[in-house]
Amino acid sequence: MTRDCVRQTPAYVPGEQPQTADFIKLNTNENPYPPPVRIFEAIQPELAKVRLYPDPVSTQLRKAAARAFQVAPEQILAGNGSDDILNIALRTFVDPDETVAFLDLTYSLYETISRVHGAKITLFPTNGLFELDQPLICPEAKLIFLASPNPPLGKHIKWEYMEETCAKATGMVLIDEAYVDFADYNHLDLLSRYDNVIISRTMSKSYSLAGMRLGFALSSPAIIAEMDKVRDSYNLDRIAQALGTAAFDEGEYFEEIWQKVRNTRTKLIKALREMDFIVPDSHANFVLASPQWIKAEHLYAELKARKILVRYFKHPRILDYLRISVGTEEEIEQLLTAIAQLRQAN
Amino acid sequence: MTRDCVRQTPAYVPGEQPQTADFIKLNTNENPYPPPVRIFEAIQPELAKVRLYPDPVSTQLRKAAARAFQVAPEQILAGNGSDDILNIALRTFVDPDETVAFLDLTYSLYETISRVHGAKITLFPTNGLFELDQPLICPEAKLIFLASPNPPLGKHIKWEYMEETCAKATGMVLIDEAYVDFADYNHLDLLSRYDNVIISRTMSKSYSLAGMRLGFALSSPAIIAEMDKVRDSYNLDRIAQALGTAAFDEGEYFEEIWQKVRNTRTKLIKALREMDFIVPDSHANFVLASPQWIKAEHLYAELKARKILVRYFKHPRILDYLRISVGTEEEIEQLLTAIAQLRQAN
Repeated sequence: MTRDCVRQTPAYVPGEQPQTADFIKLNTNENPYPPPVRIFEAIQPELAKVRLYPDPVSTQLRKAAARAFQVAPEQILAGNGSDDILNIALRTFVDPDETVAFLDLTYSLYETISRVHGAKITLFPTNGLFELDQPLICPEAKLIFLASPNPPLGKHIKWEYMEETCAKATGMVLIDEAYVDFADYNHLDLLSRYDNVIISRTMSKSYSLAGMRLGFALSSPAIIAEMDKVRDSYNLDRIAQALGTAAFDEGEYFEEIWQKVRNTRTKLIKALREMDFIVPDSHANFVLASPQWIKAEHLYAELKARKILVRYFKHPRILDYLRISVGTEEEIEQLLTAIAQLRQAN
Repeated sequence: MTRDCVRQTPAYVPGEQPQTADFIKLNTNENPYPPPVRIFEAIQPELAKVRLYPDPVSTQLRKAAARAFQVAPEQILAGNGSDDILNIALRTFVDPDETVAFLDLTYSLYETISRVHGAKITLFPTNGLFELDQPLICPEAKLIFLASPNPPLGKHIKWEYMEETCAKATGMVLIDEAYVDFADYNHLDLLSRYDNVIISRTMSKSYSLAGMRLGFALSSPAIIAEMDKVRDSYNLDRIAQALGTAAFDEGEYFEEIWQKVRNTRTKLIKALREMDFIVPDSHANFVLASPQWIKAEHLYAELKARKILVRYFKHPRILDYLRISVGTEEEIEQLLTAIAQLRQAN
């Protein structure tokens, strides 16, 4: 009795999430640094009210997000992670049998949720360097998902291509900025210039709160109001709202750790290149790296045996690559030491 | 650019959720008793891991739920509140333009989410006492939502009608048991007898965790596996999972408070009837009550002015009624005192 579109979609496979602490975990792009412990003080008052429904419209959280992103609270929709936001956008703007467009190499969830929704999919080709080398023009698309920085490469879409994509789109363009706090610029400016743009953000990576599921859509008040109808009316629990709000007040702390991650990323890329990996530049908190002296899948397994977890995708385009999250300085040193040993033994 | 089905759906209006503590809050059927404070001990270990993604499949929580409901973990899907479960069921089994059936007086979210999904709706009539007086037979329905106890009345669907509804359905039947822990029996038995039955549960009411958004679907492993594809892969945060798991271990505590709520419900119904209200029996933690000496809307406003919040629905069928959640003994005494004073002044 299941819908065809659901039955025919294979289940989405999230990255491994070992619930033990003995791995150096560099596989799902979490922030290696914890949030400041003082944000946890926001939990206690919520516990006294835990039997009561949360604020259905996440007022305080949206206000804090509005300050952080310098937009109005009416321009913000709060989601149960940015995955919730992606799904809401799809269900707000795309009828089943209508078209969604995205890159042929990007966040794999776009395909899963589009298929489950029963949408048609137009894949837009990336080049041999996994980059978009033209604007994404797709007149039949009711929604374009465009991550920038784009995984698994981690590079920004070229600004002029992004801008032309927005200008030429006949439907909505969702710019997924999950990783943007690790880059040098963002696309917030496009919000005021194009009325068909939605930007999604998450607190999972840059705000060290992957465990809490906090994401946002930013757009015009009119667009947000329509998306709000599709949202579950109580989609964020009390503690998630409180922790998210408190984390936005710690901008200085987080900006420091973003800079640390960028510095470590620079070192990681340099060291890997010196150990005979092909490593494109990255604007995110991960790098895509291809070892030239061992099969990537083999290296993944060897590292896992040494309790270091990186991401290997069984995707035909990137069979020779690993995606490595930027960990702490110490974690990356341990990774590089393990790789050096394996290389010597090889 | 919004889909017609979304644009034409008015936004769902949740009950008032004042974020100040000065109301006696009897309007959205929360449990008046808090959970035992010892469950909060489960939070601390999660905070140390809050930067890491949660377990995507809520393993421990589903195991605890399986023990509580006496089914296998594979028969359980964990949702971000049971609203998430209702939405997932709709998106798993109903193509837009296919039909969803439910009662003409029930949880109003069924209509909102069905309209947003673009589904056709067949309303099944309740009688003058707001009850179903025949099985819900609707061969074109791909999904039937049937709450039991059914709000805003709070009574179980008659067992033989429920059973015949399941037996005759050509699609899925979702039995929404949000309030069932306050009733004398549940419908878990139907799971093993009909392969088209889904039961939804929530920890919002009986487990005093409305603030945390925890709901479940119970069905066969095959049905659950299909619904799992539609679920957001990280739909429950770490702290929600931990608190839900801990709460399921407190069965004895909660059974005691369910009994307290039932006792208070009995007293409330009796006292209201003595003060010239029409009050049908209830199997839930709320009652539907019609004052015969004042307009219901007027009484709602008078109580609100006295900082007592009950629910008034601007629905043509129940304009003469208020829905009153069963609070603590003390809260209900304060309510009854306020009503007695108003009655005297009237």
